[in-house]
Amino acid sequence: LTVATASPPLDRLKLLLAEIEDLRRVEQLLDWDQHVFMPPAGAAARAEAHGTVTRLAHELLVSGAVGELLVELEPLERELGHDSVDGALLRVARRDWERARRVPAALIGELYRTNGVAVAAWERAKAASDFGLFAPHLERQLELKREYAACFPEAATPYDALLEDYEQGMTTARVAEVFTELRRALVPLVSELAERRVDEAALRGPFPVEQQRAACARILEAFGTAKSWRLDETVHPFASSPGLGDVRLTTKFRTTDLTALFSTMHEFGHGVYEAGVDPQLARTPLATGTSAAVHESQSRTWENLVGRSDGFWRWFYPILQPLFADALADVGREAFVGAVNAVKPGLIRVDADEVTYGLHIIMRFELEQALLAGDVAVRDVPKAWNARMREDLGVEVPDDAHGVLQDIHWGVGLIGYFPTYQLGNVMSVQIWRRAEEQLGDLDEQFARGQFEPLREWLRDHVYRLGRRYPPEELLERVTGSALDPAPYLDYLRSKFSP
Amino acid sequence: LTVATASPPLDRLKLLLAEIEDLRRVEQLLDWDQHVFMPPAGAAARAEAHGTVTRLAHELLVSGAVGELLVELEPLERELGHDSVDGALLRVARRDWERARRVPAALIGELYRTNGVAVAAWERAKAASDFGLFAPHLERQLELKREYAACFPEAATPYDALLEDYEQGMTTARVAEVFTELRRALVPLVSELAERRVDEAALRGPFPVEQQRAACARILEAFGTAKSWRLDETVHPFASSPGLGDVRLTTKFRTTDLTALFSTMHEFGHGVYEAGVDPQLARTPLATGTSAAVHESQSRTWENLVGRSDGFWRWFYPILQPLFADALADVGREAFVGAVNAVKPGLIRVDADEVTYGLHIIMRFELEQALLAGDVAVRDVPKAWNARMREDLGVEVPDDAHGVLQDIHWGVGLIGYFPTYQLGNVMSVQIWRRAEEQLGDLDEQFARGQFEPLREWLRDHVYRLGRRYPPEELLERVTGSALDPAPYLDYLRSKFSP
Repeated sequence: LTVATASPPLDRLKLLLAEIEDLRRVEQLLDWDQHVFMPPAGAAARAEAHGTVTRLAHELLVSGAVGELLVELEPLERELGHDSVDGALLRVARRDWERARRVPAALIGELYRTNGVAVAAWERAKAASDFGLFAPHLERQLELKREYAACFPEAATPYDALLEDYEQGMTTARVAEVFTELRRALVPLVSELAERRVDEAALRGPFPVEQQRAACARILEAFGTAKSWRLDETVHPFASSPGLGDVRLTTKFRTTDLTALFSTMHEFGHGVYEAGVDPQLARTPLATGTSAAVHESQSRTWENLVGRSDGFWRWFYPILQPLFADALADVGREAFVGAVNAVKPGLIRVDADEVTYGLHIIMRFELEQALLAGDVAVRDVPKAWNARMREDLGVEVPDDAHGVLQDIHWGVGLIGYFPTYQLGNVMSVQIWRRAEEQLGDLDEQFARGQFEPLREWLRDHVYRLGRRYPPEELLERVTGSALDPAPYLDYLRSKFSP
Repeated sequence: LTVATASPPLDRLKLLLAEIEDLRRVEQLLDWDQHVFMPPAGAAARAEAHGTVTRLAHELLVSGAVGELLVELEPLERELGHDSVDGALLRVARRDWERARRVPAALIGELYRTNGVAVAAWERAKAASDFGLFAPHLERQLELKREYAACFPEAATPYDALLEDYEQGMTTARVAEVFTELRRALVPLVSELAERRVDEAALRGPFPVEQQRAACARILEAFGTAKSWRLDETVHPFASSPGLGDVRLTTKFRTTDLTALFSTMHEFGHGVYEAGVDPQLARTPLATGTSAAVHESQSRTWENLVGRSDGFWRWFYPILQPLFADALADVGREAFVGAVNAVKPGLIRVDADEVTYGLHIIMRFELEQALLAGDVAVRDVPKAWNARMREDLGVEVPDDAHGVLQDIHWGVGLIGYFPTYQLGNVMSVQIWRRAEEQLGDLDEQFARGQFEPLREWLRDHVYRLGRRYPPEELLERVTGSALDPAPYLDYLRSKFSP
């Protein structure tokens, strides 16, 4: 299956694709550095340099050479078939090339420039908690996104065209169907659970940063990162892989809570996916996760399905408790596990628990569609946002900073991305169920500090494949079923409403 | 002088040159990251990515577009004249383009690959202290350097062709003349000074790292770095500027001595030069130091002329001493200043004092020439090295690791670079003398902790100009004289042999 195909034009194509992939990795380093270590005074120069690398990568891809080779290699692609690595390489390269060449260079430049301006406006608007300061920039982003979507007239709706960039093959209609089912189940579940009293004393802290660092290191060691992975601090945690074998997680420590532990496990999920891609795929467009939702399924797996499980804490609480002798002395394991699994409707998506999280996403998905279609005016977004928060979660939004301005996504032009977070949650449980069938009682393994069986199973069934299969096909291969919200809802009900 | 020239082809050229400059800054970030924070497992991928960026920058430069625009702009270049910024831009771009296009792409690739292999062999050879393990790689480097030099048949000798890459306009003959004069003076001076007893007790330590860090921060604050400069730790200290306003120094702390303070001041000199370039020159080939020797003149200025001066320590010793209460309690300022200015012939170039340093360089310069010309066989290098160390410095080399294998330069293909270190020392004193004429008693200013007058004078006369003038012309403009070893020898004699 992985025998190299003898074809000089294929070799030439691979060389070009390797250069493009190198530049994409360089972009990851430019980003990582910017968010972790870059002196602030370097921001303007970095924006120029990043723009140049992005532009060159795009130019290399849409250059005549790639297109001519893809035409020449069409017969070979048919011959190689769907399951061969080189067949997948050609299919993915063709798809990337087709999408890239549809978009005029001028529009790409304008999208890039607008992101720079809009994200700065978003930061000011959020600091002032004044949506009005951001509104014209959101308007401009929507105009450009409509223009971008128009480059793909085969898409059923403009939103479908945007979604396709993050989740190949997914349709707005299918997302809407799944999300409608989820919302129907989640709203009553949330209101049922919100009435329970949560003992928050267990997580009152303070939790000194050095001990949190030690706890994160211990978890990562047990999960099985290579020694050389980095864990640094940032404002907004993320994972990056600026090269094969080079995996960098970031987190944010606060002495007032232990979210850094969960964000570290979340980013581990992204990191272990990238790290697990078959090294044979290095320097090809196959050498990364297959989609945003499948990526998120893995971060959610390690953050929630592992990191908030009873078994995990049976292993880890006896290690954690002595690290925070002051704060946790009188907190038993069960109270602690209850506290880290508390369901409590809140204002902020990134602080949301497993049950309420989906409702934050579903609202954004619906609002984005309405904005893109022009069914909701930009000026009316805060009103729509706040009304929906009241309706679904029963919370009152006090100001724009804690409402419509909380997320960076629209500032940086990520419209159509939000749904992948919740699709990832849904997929994570589908994959998990299959892993459990094959690996036995995972909770018991975690209780013994054993994470290798799960990790290796996921590597074998998901990570090593990179982009060889598009997301829904991968899900079918791993789970034997298409996207299905039922296991996810079962999981939530049995965990939170037993 | 800095009014923009209205010329559409010049604008097009500037856009291309800006992209090339962006890539060069990206290369600096790739290098910095590799040496400071990159997980070791990322090395192979980084080498590929770096190779791709280097190759793309080269391809952009030698592309038809730059050449055609330079031809079209020849009349404008003559019209603009020598002192205009755009005239300098065209002159420097033409020179870079001329040199780049002479070298076949295949040779550039081979040089790059050979560096990767040879530096790894050098590391193994140094660890084993066995020159034999490195010899075939040095042989290969020399072959390739001869091939490279042959691309520039107008050079008087192959060594001249290599030197030109680091020190535009400098000739091997001129270096030899200066170095001969230096050696004639330095060998007797060293043997005179070596007989003095040095009180090394003053620097016995231990010097805890945290206090060294505080001392470095205090010095950098007084020298006047922007708040956002970075100071990180590496094995081999260096300075980097991956973008305008983005300056990153590195140092290496050892508890057994205070060399980190001096290496920090050294790298500050490199950093302040890059930081001082006129922001108007950003994203052009003019936006960096004009040559390796002028750069080194500035690192040596801040390390030695400032950092080992009496005035500096009159200001800083009262700050330093309490930081190291244990180690320095009984050490008076004069004993301390004597110790950091001790002259002591030794084996290792980077540990050498101001007086013996030049002799290390002069030997390397002569040996490199002989190797390139084939006058000395590679296998005979250790013998020649050790004999010369005995002759000039009176020291016996115990093994290859402390002799011929100590420097990384030949491993990474830097042949012809060494002389710029000593030319920098010579230039530093020439520039210093002129600064003193205009600024008055610098030593008194340093004693008051005042470094701004010197820094601003250097910015005004050297840094802000970037590459607008080639090195010897810059030196003439600043000092009114050509390269001249006399002030440097006067300085050494009056400081060390009063």
